[in-house]
Amino acid sequence: METHTANAQAAIQGMLENWTAAVRAQDLDGVMAHFAPEVVAFDAILQFQFKGVEAYRAHYAECLRAFPGTPIFELHELAIVAEENMAFARFLVRCGAVDEAGKEDVGWTRGTVCCVKRDGEWRVAHEHFSAPFDPETLNAIVNLTP
Amino acid sequence: METHTANAQAAIQGMLENWTAAVRAQDLDGVMAHFAPEVVAFDAILQFQFKGVEAYRAHYAECLRAFPGTPIFELHELAIVAEENMAFARFLVRCGAVDEAGKEDVGWTRGTVCCVKRDGEWRVAHEHFSAPFDPETLNAIVNLTP
Repeated sequence: METHTANAQAAIQGMLENWTAAVRAQDLDGVMAHFAPEVVAFDAILQFQFKGVEAYRAHYAECLRAFPGTPIFELHELAIVAEENMAFARFLVRCGAVDEAGKEDVGWTRGTVCCVKRDGEWRVAHEHFSAPFDPETLNAIVNLTP
Repeated sequence: METHTANAQAAIQGMLENWTAAVRAQDLDGVMAHFAPEVVAFDAILQFQFKGVEAYRAHYAECLRAFPGTPIFELHELAIVAEENMAFARFLVRCGAVDEAGKEDVGWTRGTVCCVKRDGEWRVAHEHFSAPFDPETLNAIVNLTP
């Protein structure tokens, strides 16, 4: 059981590293390879939810195009809880871009991914990204350093 | 395995019903009984994260006090994926209050809970609530009807 758990944690960590590398490379196919077909995603911007991998792909394509320079996309404070065939992970995301002058424009969001293992491969079946908001102003809070 | 899964899904659904009833009753102890001691929560408002049940309790106490009337707190589109000792659930939350004149003031958020089973009891080890935001204005979007 402990070996299973350690193996699953290592596999999830590897999947997340591949995914963030694909985001930084603006590699849409590489990103989408990590999702289960039935994924339901609660993304940080614009819509309440994206149901199914095709709907999420269309949204992700827009997001990858929107990086204003060289992407920054890093996971911090990663924690993974895994069993043999199911896992969840939480992390903070440092996300933004470096412009041609080398200046960084970054913000922070929070991320949760819920994963299932199918035919030996881990896939994200649900994910949730967000920034908290101020209930007085309704402004999203993206400029905090956690 | 299928029986385990069905039992776990029913147990998670029961836990979520108890939790939402406790929120509507503004019963802080009833709410907090659902969390694991090590819970890390990404709530919809104010802070990036709350680490541990005591930090989250202080925040939850403020939130329960802030309902301006009789609370509305309903889960919609609930989906649960469960194994024997781990589960995750996603849902949309219709949240607000009814004032003395019977007028509803409600908004929608998204919720994800990640659960573990310990000594026969399900507990929320991680949760994530949020509203999406508009990247142009940075305004949180809480007035959509999903």
